[in-house]
Parts: sequence; C-alpha cells; structure tokens
Amino acid sequence: MGLTQPLILINGKFNGSVSAQDRGFTYGDGVYETCRYANGKIPLWSFHLERLLAGVKHLAIPIEQQILEDYLNTLLNQFNNNQPSAQPNAIVKIIITRGEGGRGYKIPEAASPTYCLSLFPTDELCGETYLNGCDVRICQFRLSRNKTLAGLKHLNRLEQIMARMEWQDEVDEGLLLDENNNLIEATAANLFLVKNNTLLTPDLSYAGVAGVMRRVIIEKIAPQSTISVVIKNLTLDALASADEVFLCNSVRGIKPVNRVVGLKDFSTVSKPLTRQLQTALEKTFFSELYFRK
Amino acid sequence: MGLTQPLILINGKFNGSVSAQDRGFTYGDGVYETCRYANGKIPLWSFHLERLLAGVKHLAIPIEQQILEDYLNTLLNQFNNNQPSAQPNAIVKIIITRGEGGRGYKIPEAASPTYCLSLFPTDELCGETYLNGCDVRICQFRLSRNKTLAGLKHLNRLEQIMARMEWQDEVDEGLLLDENNNLIEATAANLFLVKNNTLLTPDLSYAGVAGVMRRVIIEKIAPQSTISVVIKNLTLDALASADEVFLCNSVRGIKPVNRVVGLKDFSTVSKPLTRQLQTALEKTFFSELYFRK
Repeated sequence: MGLTQPLILINGKFNGSVSAQDRGFTYGDGVYETCRYANGKIPLWSFHLERLLAGVKHLAIPIEQQILEDYLNTLLNQFNNNQPSAQPNAIVKIIITRGEGGRGYKIPEAASPTYCLSLFPTDELCGETYLNGCDVRICQFRLSRNKTLAGLKHLNRLEQIMARMEWQDEVDEGLLLDENNNLIEATAANLFLVKNNTLLTPDLSYAGVAGVMRRVIIEKIAPQSTISVVIKNLTLDALASADEVFLCNSVRGIKPVNRVVGLKDFSTVSKPLTRQLQTALEKTFFSELYFRK
Repeated sequence: MGLTQPLILINGKFNGSVSAQDRGFTYGDGVYETCRYANGKIPLWSFHLERLLAGVKHLAIPIEQQILEDYLNTLLNQFNNNQPSAQPNAIVKIIITRGEGGRGYKIPEAASPTYCLSLFPTDELCGETYLNGCDVRICQFRLSRNKTLAGLKHLNRLEQIMARMEWQDEVDEGLLLDENNNLIEATAANLFLVKNNTLLTPDLSYAGVAGVMRRVIIEKIAPQSTISVVIKNLTLDALASADEVFLCNSVRGIKPVNRVVGLKDFSTVSKPLTRQLQTALEKTFFSELYFRK
C-alpha cells in the first residue's frame, strides 16, 4: 500500500486539524459518509451524496453540493498524482459539521460548515471474511430509540463505541438490539436475514443507521435478482430461525455470517442467496473494484 | 469585559485547533464540564472533577488528574496575568476526548487523551432572569432513553441541538421529555419542582445529564435548609400542579421559572423556596462570585 497516513483536506486545504470550537468537536454536530474508492470511481456515490444531503438538511446545516464535489476532486487528484505505485483501493470519509460556534446549543447565525474529507489506505474488498464468512456476537449494550435521529449517519457515535468495547478481535462484529429488544444492526454494518427465500431486514424508524448498501440491496440488487425484501421489526428468535444471515456496508459489501456466538451456527449451511447477492453486487455497483478471489 | 475570544489550551499548549482524527471530532467520543470562574476560584470544582473522573472512567478514557490540574493552572494563570482590567467572571470549559484514532469504533490501543481547556468571557451570575425569573417552553423533541449513557455529560449532544432548534430567543429555555413522556431536564439545565414545601426532581436513570448544581442542591443546599428532596419520574401534570419551578446549572445557579408556555403561569406567585435556595447557594458555594443585585 502506498498510503499509510490519511490524506486530509479541510475546507479545501490539506491540513490535519480543525478548530477546537468546531461544533463537530464540541457536540458531534454533523454527519458523515464512508465510501470506497477505486479506479477513479466511488461506487454508490449518488447514494452517498443523497444521504449526506438529506442528513445536513435534517440538521439544518447549509452546505453547497458544488463545493463538496470540488473538494472531493481536489482530494482525489492529490491522491492519484502522488502514488508511487498503483493504489487500487482506498476509503474516502466525508465529515460535514455545522462549523465553529461558541458555547451553547443554539445554532450560531454566522456558522459556516466544515467540510472535512479524508482518504485512508485500505485493502481489497475480497478479504477472508468476504469469501468465507465472519462470526458475530450479540452485544449487551442496547441502542436508544429516537425517531428524530434514527437512520441518520450523524457524528454522535458513543453508542457504537460502548458496544464495540465489549469485545477485542475474537469476533468480527457485534449485533445490536434496541431498548425494546428489536434487532437493529451491527456496530458498523446493516443486517439481513434470509428466510424461505425472502430477505428480512430491521425497520430503522426508531434506531440504527440507514446504510447505503442496505438501500442498494433493498432497491436495486434484490429486485434485479427477483428476491423479495421485507422491512420489519425482528427479534433474536427470527435470527435464530433464519436460513442465512449477512451483514453489509458500502466499504465491505455483503459479508456472510457463519456464527452468532451463543445463538446459532450457520457455518455448515450453504448460503445461496447471500452468494447470489454478492455476485450481483460485483457485476453492477462494485464492478470498478478489484476482486482477487 | 477584557476577554472577547476564548483562551484555548490543548494538551498544555495555547492552540485553537485539534486533530481532524481526534475521536471527539469524528464520534463525540468524550466528556466535558462547564464551570464558573471568579476571584481565582472555581466554585464547585470538587464536584466537577468528581463527575469528570467518573465520566472518563465510564468511557474507559485513561486521564491523569494531575495533568488536568496542571493544565487548568496554566490556563488560569495565563488569564489572570493578561487582563488589562478586573475580570470578575469567566467560564471554564473542559473537554476530554479519547484522542486521535483512525477509522472504526474500536478503541485504539495507543490512544492518548486530548485535554482541551477553554476560558470564555461571561457576565455576572446575577442577571435579569436570575432575579426576575425566566420563561420556558415544552420541546416537541423527545430525549432517547439509554441506561448506559444516561447521566453522563458526554459529547454526543445532537439531541439538545435538535431541541434548541425549536425556538429562537422568545423563551429562555426548553423543557425536555423522554420517549416515555417523563419530564427530564431543560436543554442546558436541570429541573426542580416545589410541591407542598418539598423539592421534586426527575429521576435521570434513563435520560438526562446529572448536573453538578442538581447534585449540590440535593446533597448540600436543600439538607442545609431542611428541605426534603424526592427524586422520581415526573410528568407534565406534576409540572402543572407545582407551587414553584426552577432551573439550575453551575454557570447560572438557580433560576426561577415564571411561565411554562401553554401550560402554567407562575409569574404572579411568590417563590419562597426558590429564593431561599438561591440565598443559601450565594452564602456557601457561590460566595466567591460577584453578585450585584
């Protein structure tokens, strides 16, 4: 990998720091996106952009799409021009905050948003867990329910951090339930169950992040594959009786689940729908990425 | 006021910026305190310090108390040595984050906490609303319930920001209920009701910030004044039938409430217990502050 430290562009300047009065720092007052980058393309960019614009609108942060896209081009050009060797895969993280403000929760009248774009080194999509599946645990931490903030990829992520503190590296991910014991998601991925050839995924009206890859599966990949999707409240019982389980996000794609520790072992069952969806994704939205299976 | 811009000390250096990879900025991964400062003293410092240390322990952020106190002395000395004229009141804000980290929620093994101390200009405690009372509204936004994060003064403050967006300056504060319709607090203050000469204040086991001033009233001021305090779930009905209502925090002290817009007018009733508690606070913990009534 040519890149070991992230490349960071803040409001159009290569600069690794932000104001200590930035409301992103003082309150988590903003949203973010995490995207793959390969071969000069960000797969799923239109979905990321749409969610980002919806998120800042919800928080009343007035950003300009053209400025964002100009900054993104600046970042990617700098990356492409300074690679000593081929750099097939990277991750682009875009953080938008309300900008600098003093003390107090009231939105400053003069606030000017902060555009913080970072580019991180990463490996290829087609890693071991992509091919062979991963193990997950059930977190004890419960997500709170809040219909105003549910679905947003905002910068208030202490819940995910508290959940992630429950394990080191003995499993790949942790599944999260909300305070009402509904299954919601993993700490950094959305969750799908397969049952009788239908996809089931949790309703995120009260908790969870409405992931870009989740949306792509629901609206594009599953319909193209003539697989039905049902969005509903799901419990641990539904998980235990599922035929297949997979996680998804826009960085790691679709990852089969082998074991839900203490609940169910899927390692010996075949996962035909999960594999079918992986293949469909690779042929469409992820066709720009390197896959060395 | 001699000070118009905040004085900011980050990890012992006067410097207004933090790393864009600080987990305070990327996830709100930290806690904070907001304290008054006057006459070389921070009233209630031992309570602020105790809450801060409990907060970082809860989040597993390993800070050193001696470093924090050394940085605080550096900040206050700089402030005191550079005032062109008397500067009776200021606000000290202490933000502690987990420090720099890459992508991902897992706590970096090498993370070194960020100590961000700021000193802001402020007015005297004894402002118009302290003397004459304030008006409040009931926010439509509902706080989420989460027993792991409840009580903490952490950096995930989008809920308060969303609530604060509901009004401009037509009222002084907004009261917040949780998703179960329990009264919890105001956006930046705790809430007390007076009923039949007893203080009632919401139970914060599932939502809200356990304020330092709230604790001082419960544990010190009310007992000294032989007033009982009951901590329990409270509804809007309890608010509407209260004899007196007041807000409190460690920056503004105890503030009488005159009107809860749309619910109850307390402006014409006398507020004997609220005034008694204000006087008791001024004579003890706030005796260092300037009061120009």
